[in-house]
Amino acid sequence: MALEVESKSGPFRFQINAHCPNTLARAGSFYTPHGLVQTPRFMPVGTLGTVKGITPKQLLATGAEMVLANTYHLHLQPGEEIVSKAGGLHKFMGWDGPLLTDSGGFQVFSLAELNQIDDEGVVFKNPRDGSQIKLTPEKAIDIQMALGADVVMAFDQCPPYPAIESIVQKACYRTHSWLERCVAAHKRSDQALFGIVQGGCFPRLREESAKIVSSFNLPGVAIGGVSVGEPLQEMHQIIRQVSPLLPEDRPRYLMGIGTLREMAIGVANGIDLFDCVLPTRLGRHGTALVDGERWNLRNARFRNDHKPLDASCPCEACSNHSRAYLSHLIRSEELLGLTLLTVHNLTHMLRFTSAMSQSIIDGSFSEDFAPWRSDSDAHYTW
Amino acid sequence: MALEVESKSGPFRFQINAHCPNTLARAGSFYTPHGLVQTPRFMPVGTLGTVKGITPKQLLATGAEMVLANTYHLHLQPGEEIVSKAGGLHKFMGWDGPLLTDSGGFQVFSLAELNQIDDEGVVFKNPRDGSQIKLTPEKAIDIQMALGADVVMAFDQCPPYPAIESIVQKACYRTHSWLERCVAAHKRSDQALFGIVQGGCFPRLREESAKIVSSFNLPGVAIGGVSVGEPLQEMHQIIRQVSPLLPEDRPRYLMGIGTLREMAIGVANGIDLFDCVLPTRLGRHGTALVDGERWNLRNARFRNDHKPLDASCPCEACSNHSRAYLSHLIRSEELLGLTLLTVHNLTHMLRFTSAMSQSIIDGSFSEDFAPWRSDSDAHYTW
Repeated sequence: MALEVESKSGPFRFQINAHCPNTLARAGSFYTPHGLVQTPRFMPVGTLGTVKGITPKQLLATGAEMVLANTYHLHLQPGEEIVSKAGGLHKFMGWDGPLLTDSGGFQVFSLAELNQIDDEGVVFKNPRDGSQIKLTPEKAIDIQMALGADVVMAFDQCPPYPAIESIVQKACYRTHSWLERCVAAHKRSDQALFGIVQGGCFPRLREESAKIVSSFNLPGVAIGGVSVGEPLQEMHQIIRQVSPLLPEDRPRYLMGIGTLREMAIGVANGIDLFDCVLPTRLGRHGTALVDGERWNLRNARFRNDHKPLDASCPCEACSNHSRAYLSHLIRSEELLGLTLLTVHNLTHMLRFTSAMSQSIIDGSFSEDFAPWRSDSDAHYTW
Repeated sequence: MALEVESKSGPFRFQINAHCPNTLARAGSFYTPHGLVQTPRFMPVGTLGTVKGITPKQLLATGAEMVLANTYHLHLQPGEEIVSKAGGLHKFMGWDGPLLTDSGGFQVFSLAELNQIDDEGVVFKNPRDGSQIKLTPEKAIDIQMALGADVVMAFDQCPPYPAIESIVQKACYRTHSWLERCVAAHKRSDQALFGIVQGGCFPRLREESAKIVSSFNLPGVAIGGVSVGEPLQEMHQIIRQVSPLLPEDRPRYLMGIGTLREMAIGVANGIDLFDCVLPTRLGRHGTALVDGERWNLRNARFRNDHKPLDASCPCEACSNHSRAYLSHLIRSEELLGLTLLTVHNLTHMLRFTSAMSQSIIDGSFSEDFAPWRSDSDAHYTW
């Protein structure tokens, strides 16, 4: 049974092509003005309008379809005026595929030196020149409209972990009131605005937030405030509780998650989109993702190992180079080592989400990926 | 008139396809076991078996034909045993085109902490672990045979600048006696051994060195000991004096030179091959070579300039990206900025030597590149 929905804002369509009969997993097609995203799908992070160390051509070859960029970082440098003058972020960064920008909320609360936070918005210190910057729901949407990504995110308040229930509840309510203002401020019909569910590790707050955010009837909904320091068990619990509460016919996006086990748990519970800086950051630190493990290429065992990094992987690093060469590049702190491991790690992530998608279509997801659903299964360290 | 020569060592052939009627410039074809080098040609430097920041695929797209790697660096890391076990440097670094390795002589004398130097060879301190390393002509050739490049260089003593004549003369004589030992030690018929002319800024020594090195009847000869700190006028004088003294029917390689003006002076005096780290090093420092100038992409004038870096350049940086984007990447210290400027700068150098080659074939070299021959012409700052 294929379910279809047209988003209220025009050219967006999310179509579910197959359901797993035993889990909530679904394989879908998310159509955007810059092309199709086949879900479930991992989205590489291009913070400053570049996935660090690789060209758009290399990014495309990893299998990436939708790419995430950070509003907070792009606002600070080069500023949305310059990006807008370039014709928008797609043209500025040379990426013609689907793009998503976050709202800056997570970064403001996790990276910035906050000077003030109230119902109106947030004032923080510009780390570049010490000036005061005010970010409100309206401003976050304005910046994202200037950047011009296909999907834009609501401005939310992500409470720290741990935090007592009353603090998380306050952040939650503020997030809901900010969502209303984001919806009112957002005017571009060629962008889809996604809401964000908060609520920390409190099931009551998560449930309430899921219901309220879902009631906005937006073209997509995200789960925020996960992977902020909570134990894995709690994170899994949030995914299992919240995902089924979100509109079934809209893409569901689990923010900041990009480990294989957690993505499999997410997909089994109906999540469609993921993002995470970890695969690219690990690559830049000399670590490759192979066979569900993390391999530190500085390890002596790779020095004289002339096999491909991962013989099953079609990426440039695995098809043209050896473990010994990659180890040499990393030991020598050569830039090419970072580039090649980034290419490989992203390819690895994208192959994994593609494999889940295919197994849902083939009807074998619950069998192929079942071990991933169990918290007790420690087969994969990553 | 086409002159042909078969090198004594087998698969190497250098064929001159056209001469400039007014200068000593010639356009040639240098055949190696890993393919053709059309001369005059700039050779990118891949010190540690990688042109820093770019993949072999990107390197090929710059127009690179022959690539240089450094024996000194590769001996220290990963060591020639590992490279040899990989099947040689071509396979190790994933570059199937022509390769040249230097002998390590220049690096030992310019980078290393020397403990001993005599007629036998050089003892220096391993900068990685403090151990003593001895490099002799025989050892330098052994390492290069293990690395397996198409062209290998004789082990020479490059005296510092300035140095008095007796010091330079001693280094010169030692270089000649080392050359004899290199020739005796070199056994691979699939490698061409080039000799190196020394002699500093002393015309008498340069002349003597050119004659002696030429007398070895090697498949190619290089001019060493230039660009070591001497004034430009002296460097130009060395090029003009020495190049015509070298065998006319063998490739002539001007070591360490890669500025447009000096390459044009070199070509006008019969040089065929060049190498230099500057274009790649400048790229990694945010500087682009455009219109014979150096542009610092950090400059404020590029922040909001949405034109291509160089509209005439076919490289990935110029065809897919804008000055504003490149400026943003460099300001943000993004790795992609270094990659793209490296790609551009190499493409710029290779287009320049290709243009010289074509103009020699077309009979317009002395007209098109004449300004470059005059030391007084300051049209190009680079």
